[in-house]
Amino acid sequence: MKNVLLRIQYDGTNYHGWQRQKNAITVQGRIENAVKEVTHKFSEVVGCSRTDAGVHGFDYVCNFLTDSRIPSNKFSKVLNVVLPEDISVIESFEVDLKFNSRFCVTKKTYSYRIWNSFMCNPFLRKYSLKIPKKMNILNMKTAASFFIGTHDFVSFMSSHGQQLTTERTIYDCFVVFERSKEIKNGLFKSETNCFEPYLIEIKICANSYLYNMVRIIVGTLIEVGRGKIAPELIKSILIAKNRDLAGPTAPPHGLFLEKVFVDFSKFSREKN
Amino acid sequence: MKNVLLRIQYDGTNYHGWQRQKNAITVQGRIENAVKEVTHKFSEVVGCSRTDAGVHGFDYVCNFLTDSRIPSNKFSKVLNVVLPEDISVIESFEVDLKFNSRFCVTKKTYSYRIWNSFMCNPFLRKYSLKIPKKMNILNMKTAASFFIGTHDFVSFMSSHGQQLTTERTIYDCFVVFERSKEIKNGLFKSETNCFEPYLIEIKICANSYLYNMVRIIVGTLIEVGRGKIAPELIKSILIAKNRDLAGPTAPPHGLFLEKVFVDFSKFSREKN
Repeated sequence: MKNVLLRIQYDGTNYHGWQRQKNAITVQGRIENAVKEVTHKFSEVVGCSRTDAGVHGFDYVCNFLTDSRIPSNKFSKVLNVVLPEDISVIESFEVDLKFNSRFCVTKKTYSYRIWNSFMCNPFLRKYSLKIPKKMNILNMKTAASFFIGTHDFVSFMSSHGQQLTTERTIYDCFVVFERSKEIKNGLFKSETNCFEPYLIEIKICANSYLYNMVRIIVGTLIEVGRGKIAPELIKSILIAKNRDLAGPTAPPHGLFLEKVFVDFSKFSREKN
Repeated sequence: MKNVLLRIQYDGTNYHGWQRQKNAITVQGRIENAVKEVTHKFSEVVGCSRTDAGVHGFDYVCNFLTDSRIPSNKFSKVLNVVLPEDISVIESFEVDLKFNSRFCVTKKTYSYRIWNSFMCNPFLRKYSLKIPKKMNILNMKTAASFFIGTHDFVSFMSSHGQQLTTERTIYDCFVVFERSKEIKNGLFKSETNCFEPYLIEIKICANSYLYNMVRIIVGTLIEVGRGKIAPELIKSILIAKNRDLAGPTAPPHGLFLEKVFVDFSKFSREKN
């Protein structure tokens, strides 16, 4: 028996999230099918996070136990042959039998993309949220900084789950923006569309997340950008522990699980 | 009567190219429908290039004559309301009545993306050609340089069209590459997938192009990258004037019309 770690990427557009469901196509379901197809046995594939329907995985980590004779580092190749084009295994390797993707992840970085423009971007339409009104990005940057630290994030949680505590630590939260490439190259005159388009990216790195926490933080930062919530109010929304004070849950298609940090100090990486 | 220039972007995946066809959905057809919907009159929309089925437009230029009372710089807004999400008007403005997108374009830059990796990239699968074997990028760079200049490009043309001459001038042709972001961030060990993934981009800027010229140049550069054609052979393939000596026509989905250079010196740009 061996434990195989997979680093995967997926375009979440056509999936009902990570977690296996009876009557819906999910990423976990697809990968478990693929593993069964190549090993001829069912293995549960344990994921590092339950991403929601429509959310994308840029560097997701999962693992499974198998007694297959396929070398661990060849699983990426054989699984990619049977997986659909919107799921891809970047890398596979053997890990300690005690390794578990859910519990050995020490922090995760999410990235949320906003296409801030009057016009649609045909190439980013499935990978960003379009907001057609000019946003105050500097205020968003200020507001983002107030999320950093250890707080009770119950104001930024969709519903009460089974977690023991609603305290989480955000290591970093920031907003970056870029003038769109087509505008930099082109003839664009700002009078045409009222304002110049920007690609805004919100990045959050935390030890773990409450249900919908990233999307509610993003929804709140969008309200800040629109001038509906003052940046300083973030502090009092955190203290109030009241979901109603935060912004709406941002839609999933702008969200990427960007990077997962795994603690390998306990689990020596095997060569095979 | 006024002449309105549109800068547009489109994801070519679902279109049978630019040019209007009776029984197929095309970009020109979609835009002409949209113009008719907002002006209540048919106007022919003249494009700067006949892009093939599946090719993308990153900054395409077209124009149409209309007696509509909609201000020229508002057309981008009203057209975007009725256009599908995979076509977008970046900008619209009035140009001289003599302006014609086909004839007033002095040069065009095409960009072709290759995802050089064993695994599929879920986010680039519709916007790049995947090549699962390691390419010799330095040889491709050398080969690309031999296309620069004024040559008879008949070896790089799919079929004899109606053009008066097969001589064209390539102002620049080069290859750039980038280590993939997920690899830079991650744990990747090259032994897993034999080689590290790269995003390779081929850029060509010319005064005009013969039928399929970009895709045959790209197909030939790919053969160079694979070691099937020596870089120096490009010179003799050009001289031979024989299509059979060049590489195959690369598939369309990696190709973008990236930038169009318009000569406005003859046509003063109007304000309205």
